[in-house]
Amino acid sequence: MAVITLLTDFGTRDAYVAAMKGVILQLAPDATLVDITHQVAPQDVAEGAFALAACWRYFPDGTVHLAVVDPGVGSARRGIAIAAEGHYFVGPDNGLFSMALAHCGTRRIVALENARLFRHPVSHTFHGRDIFAPVAALLSRGMALTEAGPEVADMVLLPQAAPRRVGPGEWEGEVLAVDRFGNLITNVRGEGLAHEKVRVMVGGLEIRGVSRCYADVDEGALLALVGSSGFLEVAVNRGSAARLLKAERGTPVRVRVEHPAVPPT
Amino acid sequence: MAVITLLTDFGTRDAYVAAMKGVILQLAPDATLVDITHQVAPQDVAEGAFALAACWRYFPDGTVHLAVVDPGVGSARRGIAIAAEGHYFVGPDNGLFSMALAHCGTRRIVALENARLFRHPVSHTFHGRDIFAPVAALLSRGMALTEAGPEVADMVLLPQAAPRRVGPGEWEGEVLAVDRFGNLITNVRGEGLAHEKVRVMVGGLEIRGVSRCYADVDEGALLALVGSSGFLEVAVNRGSAARLLKAERGTPVRVRVEHPAVPPT
Amino acid sequence: MAVITLLTDFGTRDAYVAAMKGVILQLAPDATLVDITHQVAPQDVAEGAFALAACWRYFPDGTVHLAVVDPGVGSARRGIAIAAEGHYFVGPDNGLFSMALAHCGTRRIVALENARLFRHPVSHTFHGRDIFAPVAALLSRGMALTEAGPEVADMVLLPQAAPRRVGPGEWEGEVLAVDRFGNLITNVRGEGLAHEKVRVMVGGLEIRGVSRCYADVDEGALLALVGSSGFLEVAVNRGSAARLLKAERGTPVRVRVEHPAVPPT
Repeated sequence: MAVITLLTDFGTRDAYVAAMKGVILQLAPDATLVDITHQVAPQDVAEGAFALAACWRYFPDGTVHLAVVDPGVGSARRGIAIAAEGHYFVGPDNGLFSMALAHCGTRRIVALENARLFRHPVSHTFHGRDIFAPVAALLSRGMALTEAGPEVADMVLLPQAAPRRVGPGEWEGEVLAVDRFGNLITNVRGEGLAHEKVRVMVGGLEIRGVSRCYADVDEGALLALVGSSGFLEVAVNRGSAARLLKAERGTPVRVRVEHPAVPPT
Repeated sequence: MAVITLLTDFGTRDAYVAAMKGVILQLAPDATLVDITHQVAPQDVAEGAFALAACWRYFPDGTVHLAVVDPGVGSARRGIAIAAEGHYFVGPDNGLFSMALAHCGTRRIVALENARLFRHPVSHTFHGRDIFAPVAALLSRGMALTEAGPEVADMVLLPQAAPRRVGPGEWEGEVLAVDRFGNLITNVRGEGLAHEKVRVMVGGLEIRGVSRCYADVDEGALLALVGSSGFLEVAVNRGSAARLLKAERGTPVRVRVEHPAVPPT
Repeated sequence: MAVITLLTDFGTRDAYVAAMKGVILQLAPDATLVDITHQVAPQDVAEGAFALAACWRYFPDGTVHLAVVDPGVGSARRGIAIAAEGHYFVGPDNGLFSMALAHCGTRRIVALENARLFRHPVSHTFHGRDIFAPVAALLSRGMALTEAGPEVADMVLLPQAAPRRVGPGEWEGEVLAVDRFGNLITNVRGEGLAHEKVRVMVGGLEIRGVSRCYADVDEGALLALVGSSGFLEVAVNRGSAARLLKAERGTPVRVRVEHPAVPPT
């Protein structure tokens, strides 16, 4: 009984996600289906890549991650399936998986060319239903990866935003995502940040020190902490850092550390 | 282990859908529950009917489709259960199932009158929880349709919007739905549309030819294509046709075809 | 095969809920996961408490209700697990469970102190993933409540808004929640309300009598009825009472009853 996760930009008002689930359940009636999100902004591959990277490791071995943010559907872009660290990934080859797999050593990638696995006729606008869903269902039932098509050497990678050193003990990173609470999740790694001696500059304000949790500061106060994914996060206790700082994805975040033990990149 | 799909206008903020699922799982603990959508606009039976019609066929035989968009709850309107093409449908008799079943030959309909199946006391405002959920659960476990009540000859049908011929090789249809991407799904069938020789007129603009996929045209350009449900669709590559054309459900769409092989109705 | 419900203020755009589900499925692969809602307003413990109270009783015995609206995460506030009436509840001890359990006689509460059950390292900002999800999964698999930690005598209770008598046969209650339809769910109990002889005053308007269902009055007309949870509800047939009356949670509702059989509190 395998888990299949679904991540799309289809929203939850239309019936597209249900169509994919119906197709999956025809082929893998015992699958446990888990929605990661369907609220990715339309065609925003980077947002989808972040959400998938943020959670796939919490799922059991053997989980199949079906992800479809696919502005190029029906064009020459490939479909792929990937095996890495005991998990599978299925979807378009447009960078959607590159954040999730950035730190995976061994991975095998196949191009989805075995049309006998597909639902026919294959719609030119809905490979999620006709190609990716059946392949995901079959992988969840134990089909070998290479049944889906020939191995390929690489996949499309999104440009990876890594913090860069801008001075002695000073790095500039950026906001990778803003969550529902208005917390700013950055690309600055949290391990090396001693609590007292860090300054974080974002949106024209400076935060001194790294807190342990939101409630460490007064309501409405700005703070920095190491978030649940291990990255530096900027937040407002019971408020929205995004609103206070007018920050969004891509907003620069500068970190100054005295005597860093581990560089935050 | 049967599948039960749920479609309502209850939204996902309130606990109404969860109450229905709890009732189902009491009676059918092994059921696989799949949400089609709960974002149907409040009381919009036609919108619910479209969403159900768009996806029910992708589910396995034996699936029970529980649908509740029910402004007349507690009044004289009937509850019904339907068996058609190996699937079951349960909900109010107000037209919600008429699009899904428009092209089904044989179907059996029963009026939900066997009160022994219901949860008691039956609320006058929540038949979804007290009548439809238990009936759906019991059907998913193999209960005969006629256990739920006496057979009836017909059900309420929504007025069906079919394209009408307005000239030689020219039809006028309409937008049936606008999806999350702003794509306009029309009621014009796609099979007969030769790629080169079709003109589509909507919102004061004309589109020449039918594309294969969104990426066939430049970003921001308008196109027509045969969508994943087999109907003519008007879209903007990486944009919103609804916004560009100020179109919505009911907006007229005119199609002119030279030498049509199959009339698009 | 146990049911685990999830209720949070995490929204459905971010991957937080998926991370919790992944952790659960690692420990309880056969669990049936049901979302109550993730749309609780950020940090609004009272709204979450209402949603949980509105639906938990519909689930089967043995269900584990995992609820995380947790502004104090990482601070001194306790985590708790509760056994009551054959169900389990897991989450922060901040009042989130007090409405659900207001009328439960026997209940056992433990403080979550057995760190061997947790996911390590425990994030200071995401106990939902690292503490509550594993404990919920293990309880669903039959772990004894007291394995999770020592019994404690009480838990945090939210102030309970009960209607108060303001004159002969007259009570003042308030709106507890506004649902997606704009219906106002009040804290006035419905059993004692004879249909003819009740007047309901809210937002400067008076409603005479209690209707049976929405369709009992004309479209657009205001009505009062006994809602599906047994409480007095104010609604507009095919419209929004919240919009018409500019009412929200906390808006006072006055009820005048001639010769009440049962006081509405």
